[in-house]
Amino acid sequence: MSKKQNIDYQKIYNKELKKVENKISLLFKNKKPVSLYNPSKYIMKSGGKRLRPLLVLFTAKALGGEYSQVYNAALSVELIHNFTLAHDDIMDNAAKRRGRKTLHKEYDINTAILTGDNMVPIAYELLLKDIHAENSQAIIKSFSEGIREVCEGQSLDEEFELRDNVTIREYKKMIGKKTAALLKTCCSVGAQIVSSDKGQIKNLEKFGYNLGMAFQLNDDFLDLFADEAKFGKVIGGYLIEGKKTYLFLTALELAEGKYKREILKIIKDKGIRKTEVQKYKEMFVKLGVVEKTKTEIRKYSLKAISNLNSLTIKDNIEGLLWLTNSLIDRNN
Amino acid sequence: MSKKQNIDYQKIYNKELKKVENKISLLFKNKKPVSLYNPSKYIMKSGGKRLRPLLVLFTAKALGGEYSQVYNAALSVELIHNFTLAHDDIMDNAAKRRGRKTLHKEYDINTAILTGDNMVPIAYELLLKDIHAENSQAIIKSFSEGIREVCEGQSLDEEFELRDNVTIREYKKMIGKKTAALLKTCCSVGAQIVSSDKGQIKNLEKFGYNLGMAFQLNDDFLDLFADEAKFGKVIGGYLIEGKKTYLFLTALELAEGKYKREILKIIKDKGIRKTEVQKYKEMFVKLGVVEKTKTEIRKYSLKAISNLNSLTIKDNIEGLLWLTNSLIDRNN
Repeated sequence: MSKKQNIDYQKIYNKELKKVENKISLLFKNKKPVSLYNPSKYIMKSGGKRLRPLLVLFTAKALGGEYSQVYNAALSVELIHNFTLAHDDIMDNAAKRRGRKTLHKEYDINTAILTGDNMVPIAYELLLKDIHAENSQAIIKSFSEGIREVCEGQSLDEEFELRDNVTIREYKKMIGKKTAALLKTCCSVGAQIVSSDKGQIKNLEKFGYNLGMAFQLNDDFLDLFADEAKFGKVIGGYLIEGKKTYLFLTALELAEGKYKREILKIIKDKGIRKTEVQKYKEMFVKLGVVEKTKTEIRKYSLKAISNLNSLTIKDNIEGLLWLTNSLIDRNN
Repeated sequence: MSKKQNIDYQKIYNKELKKVENKISLLFKNKKPVSLYNPSKYIMKSGGKRLRPLLVLFTAKALGGEYSQVYNAALSVELIHNFTLAHDDIMDNAAKRRGRKTLHKEYDINTAILTGDNMVPIAYELLLKDIHAENSQAIIKSFSEGIREVCEGQSLDEEFELRDNVTIREYKKMIGKKTAALLKTCCSVGAQIVSSDKGQIKNLEKFGYNLGMAFQLNDDFLDLFADEAKFGKVIGGYLIEGKKTYLFLTALELAEGKYKREILKIIKDKGIRKTEVQKYKEMFVKLGVVEKTKTEIRKYSLKAISNLNSLTIKDNIEGLLWLTNSLIDRNN
């Protein structure tokens, strides 16, 4: 892409992001009971990339629709995303997210459970505002499948914490559900609201899935190889927790002898010390983990871009192309 | 109602209950991951009255529909009910339900959160199987509102635990959301699937709400005044926990002097000892709490029955009338 295009899309992104943020800030205004809606405001104000709503917007645009047709749908997927964050943070006993206290630390576990729960029916209520009778069932079906897959993915993730023999194939299946399914849902919903062309919708769903896979693998990669100054989190956080990421599982597959023993030790000890991060980072480089992960990220990114190029009309795909490239080039 | 009718509807109830149980037992068969679906089977197997699915079935029948048109919808509300039980039991730190370990005690809190979460999108997926394009949006809207209201009601219930000045009016609003809203949803969904007559649907929604109010007030009543041999739970359980039920709030309103002090002591001590239940029971009788509660239950039951009598065609309302009467006459 030319530099001019990059600048334009960054502007559009920022403009739409501002609108999304504004709509989010109005979502729970004056709603009662406050014991439920103040915590809802708290978690939704936590910022972030707002990748999912913007994906809904850019997908609708790619099929010739207008942003205004899908704003409620865009908010609905962001609500679902935050519902999963609220509950995942309880399950992981996480104290911080994006530099602020997690919902259950700011309030308590009961409040965080209920706040998450309540965001699901509200997401459906919002989604309904943007859909029309003729394809409402198909859209609600896609949306529900997406939420179910995220839950199934989270369950697999929890299961993997207790298992020592997780394969790369299983790991990909897990992130396919836990992360890629919701990005697929964003594209599915955004596409179905503005179009009834099944082939186009299918292409964009595949795009969302492949983008999600690239996004999560890149997330795994950045954990260890991000530019520390720009990352904003502890480098090697996943390794410290003993999380079985794509990098870890690839290192385990490639290692032999002494390296193999050192990597198996991570499983046995359920993580490493912060002081060991550099050692493992160097080991992973030597083992070829970096190349293998980058190849895998590139594979899914290229698949995603090829899904976009399969669309009949390619006049409006620049937004999604820009989003894809900025996600892969990101530092955090 | 004549005795003959009673016998017939008990038979129909039992027959349909058996079908519902059978469908529930097949719901998660061979589903993966087992770490998510085994707990789902566990909670759904816990039995109970299956009031909500049967309410969907009998409502559809009341408008001339067939049971077969609403089986999936019937299961979907039972899933929602069990999602709320799974999460409420975590919040209340309850160890037992219907004589078995609660979900989070049989497994763990994380599993119970996730199992509950996952039942919500599955409920929508099931519901979709029974609805048709023309009114799908209205049905999904009613269903979502119902779930949201249950969450809001649970939030109020949690809030009331911390407040000493809860009014009877506020309490009724809370149970209106926490209990009656889902019964209203059952009727709303059952009615809308088989009919597009807005007046009839509205009547049945009101019926469901009033039935729910009578049901919950009766639940409060049975806690203290059930026949111990038939009740299956500890008499006075809510008083022991210090729960601000309709009976408690009415007693507080009616009491003066020494009685008032003794009732305020329940708030201060956050409950009573098991050995004190009999004393408070007698006090509540003397204060007129029994009459006032029975009058209130009768008021809502009569409203519910009047809602049924407002239907244009009353040929098929016996099932709902029978259900209403058996709920009010129940021992557990």
